[in-house]
Amino acid sequence: MQHIWIKAIKENGKVKGDYLVQSKTVAQTRQGNSFLTLTLADRTGTVEAKVWDRVEEISTQFKEGDIITITGQANTYRNQIQIQIHELKQNKSPVDPAVFQESTPKDITEMFSELKKLAHQIKNRHLRALIESFMADHQFISQFKKAPAAKTFHHGYLGGLLEHTLSVSQMAVMVTEHYPDLDDDLLLCGAILHDIGKIDELNFELSIEYSDKGRLLGHIVLGILMVEERLKTLKDFPSELALRLRHLILSHHGEFDSGSPKRPKFLEAFALHLIDDMDAKMNGLGRLLKDDRQEGSWTAFNNLFQRYFFKGDSSAKANDKGVDIDGRQQRQRYLFPVD
Amino acid sequence: MQHIWIKAIKENGKVKGDYLVQSKTVAQTRQGNSFLTLTLADRTGTVEAKVWDRVEEISTQFKEGDIITITGQANTYRNQIQIQIHELKQNKSPVDPAVFQESTPKDITEMFSELKKLAHQIKNRHLRALIESFMADHQFISQFKKAPAAKTFHHGYLGGLLEHTLSVSQMAVMVTEHYPDLDDDLLLCGAILHDIGKIDELNFELSIEYSDKGRLLGHIVLGILMVEERLKTLKDFPSELALRLRHLILSHHGEFDSGSPKRPKFLEAFALHLIDDMDAKMNGLGRLLKDDRQEGSWTAFNNLFQRYFFKGDSSAKANDKGVDIDGRQQRQRYLFPVD
Amino acid sequence: MQHIWIKAIKENGKVKGDYLVQSKTVAQTRQGNSFLTLTLADRTGTVEAKVWDRVEEISTQFKEGDIITITGQANTYRNQIQIQIHELKQNKSPVDPAVFQESTPKDITEMFSELKKLAHQIKNRHLRALIESFMADHQFISQFKKAPAAKTFHHGYLGGLLEHTLSVSQMAVMVTEHYPDLDDDLLLCGAILHDIGKIDELNFELSIEYSDKGRLLGHIVLGILMVEERLKTLKDFPSELALRLRHLILSHHGEFDSGSPKRPKFLEAFALHLIDDMDAKMNGLGRLLKDDRQEGSWTAFNNLFQRYFFKGDSSAKANDKGVDIDGRQQRQRYLFPVD
Amino acid sequence: MQHIWIKAIKENGKVKGDYLVQSKTVAQTRQGNSFLTLTLADRTGTVEAKVWDRVEEISTQFKEGDIITITGQANTYRNQIQIQIHELKQNKSPVDPAVFQESTPKDITEMFSELKKLAHQIKNRHLRALIESFMADHQFISQFKKAPAAKTFHHGYLGGLLEHTLSVSQMAVMVTEHYPDLDDDLLLCGAILHDIGKIDELNFELSIEYSDKGRLLGHIVLGILMVEERLKTLKDFPSELALRLRHLILSHHGEFDSGSPKRPKFLEAFALHLIDDMDAKMNGLGRLLKDDRQEGSWTAFNNLFQRYFFKGDSSAKANDKGVDIDGRQQRQRYLFPVD
Amino acid sequence: MQHIWIKAIKENGKVKGDYLVQSKTVAQTRQGNSFLTLTLADRTGTVEAKVWDRVEEISTQFKEGDIITITGQANTYRNQIQIQIHELKQNKSPVDPAVFQESTPKDITEMFSELKKLAHQIKNRHLRALIESFMADHQFISQFKKAPAAKTFHHGYLGGLLEHTLSVSQMAVMVTEHYPDLDDDLLLCGAILHDIGKIDELNFELSIEYSDKGRLLGHIVLGILMVEERLKTLKDFPSELALRLRHLILSHHGEFDSGSPKRPKFLEAFALHLIDDMDAKMNGLGRLLKDDRQEGSWTAFNNLFQRYFFKGDSSAKANDKGVDIDGRQQRQRYLFPVD
Amino acid sequence: MQHIWIKAIKENGKVKGDYLVQSKTVAQTRQGNSFLTLTLADRTGTVEAKVWDRVEEISTQFKEGDIITITGQANTYRNQIQIQIHELKQNKSPVDPAVFQESTPKDITEMFSELKKLAHQIKNRHLRALIESFMADHQFISQFKKAPAAKTFHHGYLGGLLEHTLSVSQMAVMVTEHYPDLDDDLLLCGAILHDIGKIDELNFELSIEYSDKGRLLGHIVLGILMVEERLKTLKDFPSELALRLRHLILSHHGEFDSGSPKRPKFLEAFALHLIDDMDAKMNGLGRLLKDDRQEGSWTAFNNLFQRYFFKGDSSAKANDKGVDIDGRQQRQRYLFPVD
Repeated sequence: MQHIWIKAIKENGKVKGDYLVQSKTVAQTRQGNSFLTLTLADRTGTVEAKVWDRVEEISTQFKEGDIITITGQANTYRNQIQIQIHELKQNKSPVDPAVFQESTPKDITEMFSELKKLAHQIKNRHLRALIESFMADHQFISQFKKAPAAKTFHHGYLGGLLEHTLSVSQMAVMVTEHYPDLDDDLLLCGAILHDIGKIDELNFELSIEYSDKGRLLGHIVLGILMVEERLKTLKDFPSELALRLRHLILSHHGEFDSGSPKRPKFLEAFALHLIDDMDAKMNGLGRLLKDDRQEGSWTAFNNLFQRYFFKGDSSAKANDKGVDIDGRQQRQRYLFPVD
Repeated sequence: MQHIWIKAIKENGKVKGDYLVQSKTVAQTRQGNSFLTLTLADRTGTVEAKVWDRVEEISTQFKEGDIITITGQANTYRNQIQIQIHELKQNKSPVDPAVFQESTPKDITEMFSELKKLAHQIKNRHLRALIESFMADHQFISQFKKAPAAKTFHHGYLGGLLEHTLSVSQMAVMVTEHYPDLDDDLLLCGAILHDIGKIDELNFELSIEYSDKGRLLGHIVLGILMVEERLKTLKDFPSELALRLRHLILSHHGEFDSGSPKRPKFLEAFALHLIDDMDAKMNGLGRLLKDDRQEGSWTAFNNLFQRYFFKGDSSAKANDKGVDIDGRQQRQRYLFPVD
Repeated sequence: MQHIWIKAIKENGKVKGDYLVQSKTVAQTRQGNSFLTLTLADRTGTVEAKVWDRVEEISTQFKEGDIITITGQANTYRNQIQIQIHELKQNKSPVDPAVFQESTPKDITEMFSELKKLAHQIKNRHLRALIESFMADHQFISQFKKAPAAKTFHHGYLGGLLEHTLSVSQMAVMVTEHYPDLDDDLLLCGAILHDIGKIDELNFELSIEYSDKGRLLGHIVLGILMVEERLKTLKDFPSELALRLRHLILSHHGEFDSGSPKRPKFLEAFALHLIDDMDAKMNGLGRLLKDDRQEGSWTAFNNLFQRYFFKGDSSAKANDKGVDIDGRQQRQRYLFPVD
Repeated sequence: MQHIWIKAIKENGKVKGDYLVQSKTVAQTRQGNSFLTLTLADRTGTVEAKVWDRVEEISTQFKEGDIITITGQANTYRNQIQIQIHELKQNKSPVDPAVFQESTPKDITEMFSELKKLAHQIKNRHLRALIESFMADHQFISQFKKAPAAKTFHHGYLGGLLEHTLSVSQMAVMVTEHYPDLDDDLLLCGAILHDIGKIDELNFELSIEYSDKGRLLGHIVLGILMVEERLKTLKDFPSELALRLRHLILSHHGEFDSGSPKRPKFLEAFALHLIDDMDAKMNGLGRLLKDDRQEGSWTAFNNLFQRYFFKGDSSAKANDKGVDIDGRQQRQRYLFPVD
Repeated sequence: MQHIWIKAIKENGKVKGDYLVQSKTVAQTRQGNSFLTLTLADRTGTVEAKVWDRVEEISTQFKEGDIITITGQANTYRNQIQIQIHELKQNKSPVDPAVFQESTPKDITEMFSELKKLAHQIKNRHLRALIESFMADHQFISQFKKAPAAKTFHHGYLGGLLEHTLSVSQMAVMVTEHYPDLDDDLLLCGAILHDIGKIDELNFELSIEYSDKGRLLGHIVLGILMVEERLKTLKDFPSELALRLRHLILSHHGEFDSGSPKRPKFLEAFALHLIDDMDAKMNGLGRLLKDDRQEGSWTAFNNLFQRYFFKGDSSAKANDKGVDIDGRQQRQRYLFPVD
Repeated sequence: MQHIWIKAIKENGKVKGDYLVQSKTVAQTRQGNSFLTLTLADRTGTVEAKVWDRVEEISTQFKEGDIITITGQANTYRNQIQIQIHELKQNKSPVDPAVFQESTPKDITEMFSELKKLAHQIKNRHLRALIESFMADHQFISQFKKAPAAKTFHHGYLGGLLEHTLSVSQMAVMVTEHYPDLDDDLLLCGAILHDIGKIDELNFELSIEYSDKGRLLGHIVLGILMVEERLKTLKDFPSELALRLRHLILSHHGEFDSGSPKRPKFLEAFALHLIDDMDAKMNGLGRLLKDDRQEGSWTAFNNLFQRYFFKGDSSAKANDKGVDIDGRQQRQRYLFPVD
């Protein structure tokens, strides 16, 4: 069955597909008739939908958090798209989570294989043993490959943590080649491990949310605890090396205000912080600029950065949009092959 | 033998006692004669000293970091007290570290017994088991009783960590009686454990200095690691309780800028932060005001607080100073009983 | 007559009671019929209400700021409760202000009696005379017992100033017992007087609003002026004591950014600032956590603190909510005894 | 008798005059001879001086804080001018305080007469009555004419408060002519009174120092108290006018960080803050640039402003220096007429 | 034809005039009928308007950005004025831009003539030549007379740049008369040129918007580039004078945070910054206070200044409003003479 | 002749070489004999030196800023090395400036050739033409190859600007390969030009000092002016491209507080800022860590970063120091070939 992505719904167009019920309310018209207001979601956004008929009967068939299959028609109410639902049933068959959550555009298996190759380049046997200890933990790796790197902004989608980790690690290798005074093994190992605490900081089953321990402890401290547990099993790990590695993780946000309990105190710690910052900005701003739908040469005001971003002459961006749409169509074909 | 405290040395007075050699330099007068310049220290301060005779011979008998026994005379050079050493020998007998480092004015055994009593009041069996696990570790307790609470400012002396921990714990009990919505067991347990990372953050054998792990990881994260290790041995420890306890430790500095990787997110975390702040200020400023030797009603400018402090009419302070001097004399008698 | 609290109004339920008219607008339907839109308020919140019939006649019977007695029915419009008014008349009889403004949950008479007992413990005759001078001023005391401690956040309800003042004073006594170097009389006197300027800073007849002098001068300076007036009548008041007391009031917000024209410069000033901060947070956050209706273990994002607060496992909070509802029901019974 | 100003003392030159003894120390040479080290001051600076002969006898004749009359010779020791005193006696005759403290370069009587003229232009009878009440208080006026406007930086000399007040008042008149929406009477009255608290904030008998009440309360609150006392005697003073005037004084530092408990909230308050800031900078920086003795086109690094200031091509400044030297010579002639 | 200003539209009143179409949307009622929702604008504000009949036909006659002539009726929907359009046609005749954009209330020709008079007073021949070079450039002057000084806040209307520049220049003359140490020619020249970069920073044809170069480079740097171009044509311009002038422009925002790449480093630079700040605040806040429609003695909360502003007793403001209304009526008469 | 580097002078060792006279003072001993105190400098540091004999004669032979050739002996006075000069004459022969100023350790010709190769890779003909226009200006290139990149901290030595520019450009190429969405030509061109304003910001003949225009305008604005001049000669340069390039230069410090008048507003501007920051820190901190002579595993407190830096186990650093010393010896051999 074909799924119409929410972002692709057009005024007066047909709507058809599986959607997550984010909220569900029964209310009365002024004439006293019940109607149902739903907020439906897929990974491309949310939309309001109405059921005007057989409300009591339909209303009992599903609850918030369920996935429903509908057909309907889109119209506009107060400048917002609104769906009039004609048919509705609860979806009982297994659904591809990727319909409801965005995933990395890159291939997870390939990226992980790249990361392993980099890890094999670590010459220091202690650091290599540490990384291998993580790599050998199937439960950890399964989560590591699935986790996003953030709730929003940069790499905020399934597989984002791996994508970000690989990119930071590749940059770490390039930077140590450019600045040979840097300890390449230490920086690469810090790059691989710097954000592993995100696995515990975020819940990412249905949607990306902070976990309780994420908000109370944060991924920096959670990551330190994960590394500590492994270090205990590696008996002759040199103490200064362990100290430097822990410091890399602790200080990788660079400043107290960004939640680092310590600021960088040696070269590799500065390097890791700057590479991480670069990768977060290139991914986060890159996506923001691509996804921006504001007319003209500037994005909407961005609260995180407290500024507008420059997109420049929009004619030059035509290709990008084309590619983007193609990408979406291809992924859709994969998810909902035509029967 | 009597020891003349460095702070008590007067112009033209005799000098006699055991002092730590902080620095030692040999130089030449314009006439080409060698002389020795030493910086001597005990817990009351430092002073410059000179040896003009038999320099080559004497110079070989000790090095920086040794303790020497001297007699000499104090005079003034460029408005600074300077000691002319007449006799000098290296001290070989064991010395009371309390001569060279200040200690808590309170009784360590009594304070620790008080703290244990408070710990026994913890009703929650998990939290009580956690505290008892620490209390049963003799090596930990030995360090815990000896450690200072800071390098400078508040409780910056041997036994200061215990003194501060007890005081914060007592305040925690009072505060939970006043605000019954607070979880008394959680706050008390957080009070007892909040600064244990200081044991690893500071070295305090000869003088109080930050350790490498202190500067690179900090006592907040070091404390979390120490608690984590114990929590692993307490199998059914409730996960939310453990999370709240870890958060109390992580957030007890209150703000990012003070090195807390997380800011307080529930009532007990705010309470612990404010009690800790109160105790640090009452101790640190109380000592600063007592020790200040500036004439008039104001202290010298304080860089940490960026202000002058008000001492008020000095005549009203006469008693305090009297008490203080008595305290010093009594302690000295204990250290150097008249033979 | 029974009053249905606005927060307790349920979808499709009957509505009955006395409400304050906060706003009143006449408009036309697309069919050209007039209707009346009201915002009604009691101390539990506000709600929109509609009058569809006899609009011209009814509209003239009351104005904004009046209290009306209505019966009606609640339904939901755009996810908001909306009342369809069936009967409406202006309330001419005297109304209990406590219906429209929240009050302290504690007994005002008892609290004031507690505060007087504490005041009698002041040993310094000058400070005691100063406090007694305030206590003997019936007009002042009448306002002092009624005033809130804030417009929002902590103790933002009638009687809140007294509740906060008593709590801070009790903590001051405890703190001086714990830190005997503190001047107990000075700190207690500062605790009692620190916020008296709030009487002039806020108007609290119908609702809590800043007064003109509140916004232009602030409660710190207003409090100083009130104390100054009394000090002039106490002829031999020691000048340094008066200076210290004034400084306690001036500096009790702790930092310039919080509106203190001077930062604390001696121990009692730091202690008062920290106790005041503790009490404000325990009350303000305590209420925020209790009143929060957000699902899950976290409150909604709090703008003042720029963070979410942790409520933890909601099952553990069931008792609290029960108690709260009981409290509301009891108060309602007192206000609207069943006839 | 002629007085050699300390700033004018040249290497190898003769020294002669009355100087304030700021510090006095007796010490011994390595040969065991006593000598006297003095710090001497007049309003142009301080200098170290030595007495090598008859030290015991001379030393008893004066103490710190006395004024002595000396003759001697200047030489250089470690790149500092040092005076070898040949003759020394305590000065018993009355001395002109202006030798030891700098005074405004302007005529105090003329300035005060200017200020009175401006005050007479106030049309609002209440504000005029308030100013006249101050003007009629001889004790107040005597202090007001003598006080400096600051300890350092701007107008930090006797008569500086009057000079600054007049200048701000003149600017206030100009600004209200330029922006006719401003209330001219209110702004002028605020200008005249904005800094009167400086009379109490500073002690300025021998040198300019903060008073205890200056440091604990500050000139803003002290000024408010002085105005309040007068307002009480002016029975029908309009309350909003009094409120606006108090706010002008309270907010004239503009920001919390500068010690204003309230920030400006209407036009005249902004205007007064900016005029005050302008006058402080023009006077303070103007003097700093004139007095700077650093070679080249830049001043020494200025800590208050955290920057260097540009003096530009020094040849263009020749005239200024000439004028300045003339001014100093003329003042000296007035103080020490040739006999 | 008469134009009803949008701010003057009253509930149930007739509407008639030329309006700019800011947005245009076609939608369907629940019954399936098309209707048109427009946002109409003139210089006094914006309003929503509806077309219910002949929607397809009318909709094709104009697009966003066009000016239309309408008649209609105002009613209230959800507490907002909404216009029901009866007649609508596209306006083809030339329209006075002043209907759609606010202009300075002052006479542009007179202001420019005043500014030229001030410029003639410049005695330094180099600075005078520089100003004359700008004055002789008709294209520059034409833009300079039309440009606003800001997008919002101060002088945010056509002619605002000239009005602001003249006012700052007049203040500069007054300030140099008051502080004779200031270089009058330099300050006046800096005042005239300080904001010329606004001509390029803002687009102000249809409405005031930042240009791309405005957001990417800013008016400070754009102004520097404009001055640089002229300086190149003035061959013997003294280099230090040019440097000082450039610095005046670069530093006129006073602080890094306000976008000045350099902070003021000599007296004239401080003076220009403070005068500019004064003029911006007097104009911006003056207009804000006059235009504020909030009931009571305070404005709505102002986000830029993070505070409420005091308007005081509204009865005293009656005159102002009267004058203001007159001004608007007079301007309207000029724009739409009664036929 | 061999030159003893100032940093290599040892207590009691012989001194011999050419040194720059930074300051020169004649003074008298207490016995009335003249002596000469000099501050001598070479690129490794400064040292105090004394001449006790024939002072009048020798003193006239040279002035501050001259280079003198001396022999002498080093002793210690007050813990500082001090040279007793035995022979002294003014050096008349041309001296290698590299003796008195540090130079890049890399080969300038090679680095410039590398940079040119990178520049040839620019595909965009406009950007390539711009860079070629700079490369063709021999006077510019001569200065560009000689200039330092800073007064202190990073690349603060002759040739440092080229070294830094090449390194940033190489990183820019790597970063655009890693993030293919970036415009490689734009980023590389911005990297090459970002700091060219340093040529005018700094004077670097005898030592590195800020120029007047450096302090008043800064290298960011100076660089913009240099680019602007070239852009005027390249007639069809696309306006958006020019705008983006100017913005890269203007925003490369990243934040207002660092003196950027605009913050980055598109991806390449963020990338340039982060690469520049990385290169400055790797060079500046790398040198700081290498040059630090503090005992133990930590550097002295660093004021710029407000922290200590970790050097770790010093035994591991032995090789580095060896290499460094070798480098110095080799360079010395080149400068002072053994005759």
